[in-house]
Amino acid sequence: MDHVLGLSCVNCGREFEASGIIYHCDICGSRGVLDVIYDYRLIRTRLSRAKLADNRDRSMWRYMPVLPLGPGAMAGIQPLLTGFTPLYNAGRLAAELGLGRLFIKDDSRNPTGSLKDRASAVAVAKAVELGQEAVCAASTGNAASSLAGFAASAGIPAFIFVPKTAPEAKLAQLLVFGARVFAVDGTYDEAFELCLEAAREFGWYNRSCAINPFLVEGKKTLAFEICEQMDWEVPDVVIMSVGDGCSIAAAWKGFKEAHTLGLIDRLPRMVGVQAAGANPLTRAFAEETLEFTYRRPHTVADSISVGIPRNGIRALRSVRESGGFFVDVEDHEILSAMTRLARSTGIFAEPAGATSFAGLNRLMVSGSLPAGGTIALTVTGSGLKDVAGAMAAAPQATQIEPSLLAVREIMGVH
Amino acid sequence: MDHVLGLSCVNCGREFEASGIIYHCDICGSRGVLDVIYDYRLIRTRLSRAKLADNRDRSMWRYMPVLPLGPGAMAGIQPLLTGFTPLYNAGRLAAELGLGRLFIKDDSRNPTGSLKDRASAVAVAKAVELGQEAVCAASTGNAASSLAGFAASAGIPAFIFVPKTAPEAKLAQLLVFGARVFAVDGTYDEAFELCLEAAREFGWYNRSCAINPFLVEGKKTLAFEICEQMDWEVPDVVIMSVGDGCSIAAAWKGFKEAHTLGLIDRLPRMVGVQAAGANPLTRAFAEETLEFTYRRPHTVADSISVGIPRNGIRALRSVRESGGFFVDVEDHEILSAMTRLARSTGIFAEPAGATSFAGLNRLMVSGSLPAGGTIALTVTGSGLKDVAGAMAAAPQATQIEPSLLAVREIMGVH
Repeated sequence: MDHVLGLSCVNCGREFEASGIIYHCDICGSRGVLDVIYDYRLIRTRLSRAKLADNRDRSMWRYMPVLPLGPGAMAGIQPLLTGFTPLYNAGRLAAELGLGRLFIKDDSRNPTGSLKDRASAVAVAKAVELGQEAVCAASTGNAASSLAGFAASAGIPAFIFVPKTAPEAKLAQLLVFGARVFAVDGTYDEAFELCLEAAREFGWYNRSCAINPFLVEGKKTLAFEICEQMDWEVPDVVIMSVGDGCSIAAAWKGFKEAHTLGLIDRLPRMVGVQAAGANPLTRAFAEETLEFTYRRPHTVADSISVGIPRNGIRALRSVRESGGFFVDVEDHEILSAMTRLARSTGIFAEPAGATSFAGLNRLMVSGSLPAGGTIALTVTGSGLKDVAGAMAAAPQATQIEPSLLAVREIMGVH
Repeated sequence: MDHVLGLSCVNCGREFEASGIIYHCDICGSRGVLDVIYDYRLIRTRLSRAKLADNRDRSMWRYMPVLPLGPGAMAGIQPLLTGFTPLYNAGRLAAELGLGRLFIKDDSRNPTGSLKDRASAVAVAKAVELGQEAVCAASTGNAASSLAGFAASAGIPAFIFVPKTAPEAKLAQLLVFGARVFAVDGTYDEAFELCLEAAREFGWYNRSCAINPFLVEGKKTLAFEICEQMDWEVPDVVIMSVGDGCSIAAAWKGFKEAHTLGLIDRLPRMVGVQAAGANPLTRAFAEETLEFTYRRPHTVADSISVGIPRNGIRALRSVRESGGFFVDVEDHEILSAMTRLARSTGIFAEPAGATSFAGLNRLMVSGSLPAGGTIALTVTGSGLKDVAGAMAAAPQATQIEPSLLAVREIMGVH
């Protein structure tokens, strides 16, 4: 880990050692998310366009020189193949929308079906590196199933804390992966706190969102991949759906690092899309504040249904720094974005995964994007994770008698 | 298509031209599935270990020289990234089971979550090459959602015929992809026949199972990948779950072709695993016949729930020729295989996808596999496709008060 200089609190700037187990800044508490600081001069000697061109690893581990792991981190782990997901050049859809070019990064193709796998891959590798014997998280959603899958592949136990109201279907995947699931008789916040306490008590490694400083590091590989898969061109605008804010902050860090390392020569603008019913970041951005006001979240896009974003400060700073902005979309726009994306590209996204595309549609109407520009859109989760969402979005089947005549009639051929 | 010599009926051996639209042998009817015949001497000049080592395409299209498509077939298609799915070396699980080596081919990582995507990719490319304006299929399952996804990505309409009893959740994915779904007031066989008639009437290209001679060609790439990903070693035994028999016949064709082309120096034995409640092939194999006797299928593994296998003759011949055999497993074995596979490897399979592993477990008990041998196991579909199946397989969550004391008690720490 000679390339890692330390950790820095995003709230107060205090610095910490990166070795050992550390979650957030002990002064700032949960607002004090820690950011990993690297020695980019050293990394430049290890990561370049030429070195990547020769690298046959088609996974996120091709960017190991910018990840906070020691050289032997992957020994003894049979890793699930993670990252280097397809980047599609969606020409037909771009033409339909009147865009110059539209690239779609399909992160639903990760092992457990979401972008979260990039974070879990690093978290579990880190747990093994630190000699931790178990991992834990508070989550009902993609982060939990992701952690459960990666813990299973590494052969270490996972403990997951969920509010007991979590739907059974969402828990099935965790339980099949063999995670020990605690259904807590309380709110999500109580489950979150209990997970923190239990992690301390039992020495479990905590992968809860915005607690673990290494999650962002895994997720930032998304940005490196977009650039590399565009042959080191840079999109004008990157559009992502946003819940807690970890992913968009991570992608921005990735683009900045790619720039610092000389892999790309400019930076994109970052656009965050939130569901109108769970939009603390859109509101804070509009009000130019770093304080978040709670409203009970309500949206069909459950993976980004957030009242107070746990990595909100960092997300706001990232989007501002990039010259981008936040935009809201209504649930009906999310559902129709799901079907339009699927039928135009063959990509089946969960509602939160299609929220970025709903945002793009909204921005095309308002004319807020550069004419003829190049847009990169991220799809963060698979539609197979939320069949109920798909059923809400889908049209009906056509009932028909078993005769060709009936087909003819429906086809309007007489 | 100078490398394609023609089509040959697997039942009577008559030969047909491979150009134009042709489904099955006009003498033998639905028993007369057609097999593509190639000029392997010509293909040898185009496909070799060295050429593949230089090929940067990480999808099934790296094997284009053995696929029945013309050189310009992929122009104008934005293909979904298909094939070249991970082959995991499952060391821990192999040790647990007392196997020499166990490789797991995770085909749930295809675009719509199943092996069927390999067939749809070829079918849709073929439809475009032939100037067909629409595609169709009769299916309620993975083949239908796969066809719908690939048709969407290619920008051509898909018409799907299902019995009206098909569960709504299974149809959601098709409908989101924009397929026109006809819910036929009749049986699956009536839906199948109606699809055939409609294809003829409206000039739609038919991707129904065992009708279209090119589906097997797409699926055979699985075998090429296993060999290439094992650095051209060959497993002693390949274990696959079997429904209609297309996939195991396709894999066997792939291994034989790899052998003919000099890519590998021996052949594996093929073991087909059926659910005990849908086992016409196991029975026919035991009785040494090519005739199938119908029993109403009943199994939790819906993707292989087949009464009469539509590509059964070819599957039987393939397994016999390889020196392999068929084996049955009960539903409870399938469900426990799902959880064991998931918790040992992080691979979440649908019940039919884990049936191969259930077969392996059965064979370990009966001692029917070579001691210290190398086994390749295929996982054909994602567990996210069948959350109900996962819920049946999964244990329960642990209800708990929101206190550390409660966690301590459950962990047995006082």
